[in-house]
Amino acid sequence: MNKINVEKCAGILKEKDNILILMHAHPDGDTLGCGFGLCSALLMMGKKARAICADEIPKKFAYLYENIDMPDFEEEYIVSVDVAAETLLGSLADKYAGRINLCIDHHASNTIKADYTLLNADAAAACEIILKVVKALRIRVDKYMANCLYTGLTTDTGCFRYASATSNTYRAAAQLIDYGAENGIINRAMFETKTKSYSALERLAIEGMRFYNNERVCVIKITQEMYNQTGSNETETEAIPPLTRQTEGVEVGITVFEKPDGSCKCSLRTFESVDASKLAGCFGGGGHKQAAACRLESGVEETTRLLVEKSKEFLK
Amino acid sequence: MNKINVEKCAGILKEKDNILILMHAHPDGDTLGCGFGLCSALLMMGKKARAICADEIPKKFAYLYENIDMPDFEEEYIVSVDVAAETLLGSLADKYAGRINLCIDHHASNTIKADYTLLNADAAAACEIILKVVKALRIRVDKYMANCLYTGLTTDTGCFRYASATSNTYRAAAQLIDYGAENGIINRAMFETKTKSYSALERLAIEGMRFYNNERVCVIKITQEMYNQTGSNETETEAIPPLTRQTEGVEVGITVFEKPDGSCKCSLRTFESVDASKLAGCFGGGGHKQAAACRLESGVEETTRLLVEKSKEFLK
Repeated sequence: MNKINVEKCAGILKEKDNILILMHAHPDGDTLGCGFGLCSALLMMGKKARAICADEIPKKFAYLYENIDMPDFEEEYIVSVDVAAETLLGSLADKYAGRINLCIDHHASNTIKADYTLLNADAAAACEIILKVVKALRIRVDKYMANCLYTGLTTDTGCFRYASATSNTYRAAAQLIDYGAENGIINRAMFETKTKSYSALERLAIEGMRFYNNERVCVIKITQEMYNQTGSNETETEAIPPLTRQTEGVEVGITVFEKPDGSCKCSLRTFESVDASKLAGCFGGGGHKQAAACRLESGVEETTRLLVEKSKEFLK
Repeated sequence: MNKINVEKCAGILKEKDNILILMHAHPDGDTLGCGFGLCSALLMMGKKARAICADEIPKKFAYLYENIDMPDFEEEYIVSVDVAAETLLGSLADKYAGRINLCIDHHASNTIKADYTLLNADAAAACEIILKVVKALRIRVDKYMANCLYTGLTTDTGCFRYASATSNTYRAAAQLIDYGAENGIINRAMFETKTKSYSALERLAIEGMRFYNNERVCVIKITQEMYNQTGSNETETEAIPPLTRQTEGVEVGITVFEKPDGSCKCSLRTFESVDASKLAGCFGGGGHKQAAACRLESGVEETTRLLVEKSKEFLK
């Protein structure tokens, strides 16, 4: 891995053209903010650039993808943003794995072998790094770009809630607001507005919430039947796993998502007492210390039983 | 009203001693952060100071009130912080109304007649103003003071979510984090941790949520029976009213709280389309454009009916 700093990264981008920006699959606010934000900066420099990802972009990000006009071209230089591993490109991995020229990321665990890597694991969001790159490119940050980058900051920090948000994150947000970022509107769209279908799903999820092991383990199950009943679907469930961890005394929060084939994807949330990535690791998964995930071939009930049992081993 | 600036305010405080700081009744994070933060600054200057309020301070603020040692003394100078009107002092109003020497606040509607008033309605939280005063006093902000002032910033802005949070608010937060404010821990305590009793109440509230007028009006009812069933009580319900406004399409959110005597207190939440203070005004209440409250002598069902009917008149 050829690690570079922000200035070097800006220097490289200045030299290149026809730049394809890869965002990760199941795109979130940070990868989208990075992708469209960097893309708009490159377009402003008179370059051709385009940001793409494998999956459909959730509608709540329409203010990002509808307000940029990206040209078609034959890609000459490939940049990944907020992508920790090539597998996370999803269906784009087939075409682009091994071909990434410049990797810009904030995941300490980054495994991408690019020509150059700009990695800052202290950044709460990859958008914090992109803001520095854009400033090193001497680009005037306009309202659209500010909205892109603010979106990444706020979504990756749970609206500046998590300890990962440093004073640098807050200062970056302040700059972006001065550049015109519509913080109130963005945060309402990201955190306050629930679709009717999601609201209905969340109500069912909360009604079905169950506690185990002296209420130190909390489980929410999301079944295909619940999607059918509410008109909701997996793309709008990212706010469910944090619910498992909100009740006082809960140390392990487990969300079991039933897949269409009857197998399960599980999201784990913990506090300091349990390493979620180790718990997920017992089932072949991984992630961060307080947020991790794994997949099990078993059905919802059996998966729940297995995870609850394994959790008990992690609780002293 | 003798309006003064931050420098003048600091100059006045330097001259005074035996300072009593009044916080508002039903204390929130902003008035407590101001009170204890300013008090600790004055103590650091070798003065005698004490911060008080009429009501019991919620337990989640223990990290503020348990970590300051306030002396007893005969008060010579009285300062109010984050108090918009003397009636908001609650039971302390009898003793202190008309006696406030210095009023520090961020409510545009402030009606207190003090010798001096430091008012900045652009500040998202009164703690933003106190930080400026403390810096003008040339006091080194320590971790405790930083925690106090950060608490005010984050609670009054819904964790930096609302449009009221400006770039100045974010910069103030950045400074406080650099001074040692434990932002991750504070935000978890303020926003992520629900007591078991509150969690149970919230689940009942969500199960009982009802929609009216093409789902443009959402109602949650909190009855005495629900408190009995869950072990919860009115002091831990401030997170309920925002729930009414979260579903897409809802323009008026109504929370009806049944009081022990069978009458009701109603919290109203709206978006731009409806002025909540006007809706509350129809029932003798008031507040802000998007958050207001009123009291009705009628029971829960009748109160709900009256408010839903009146809401329809406000929806075009």
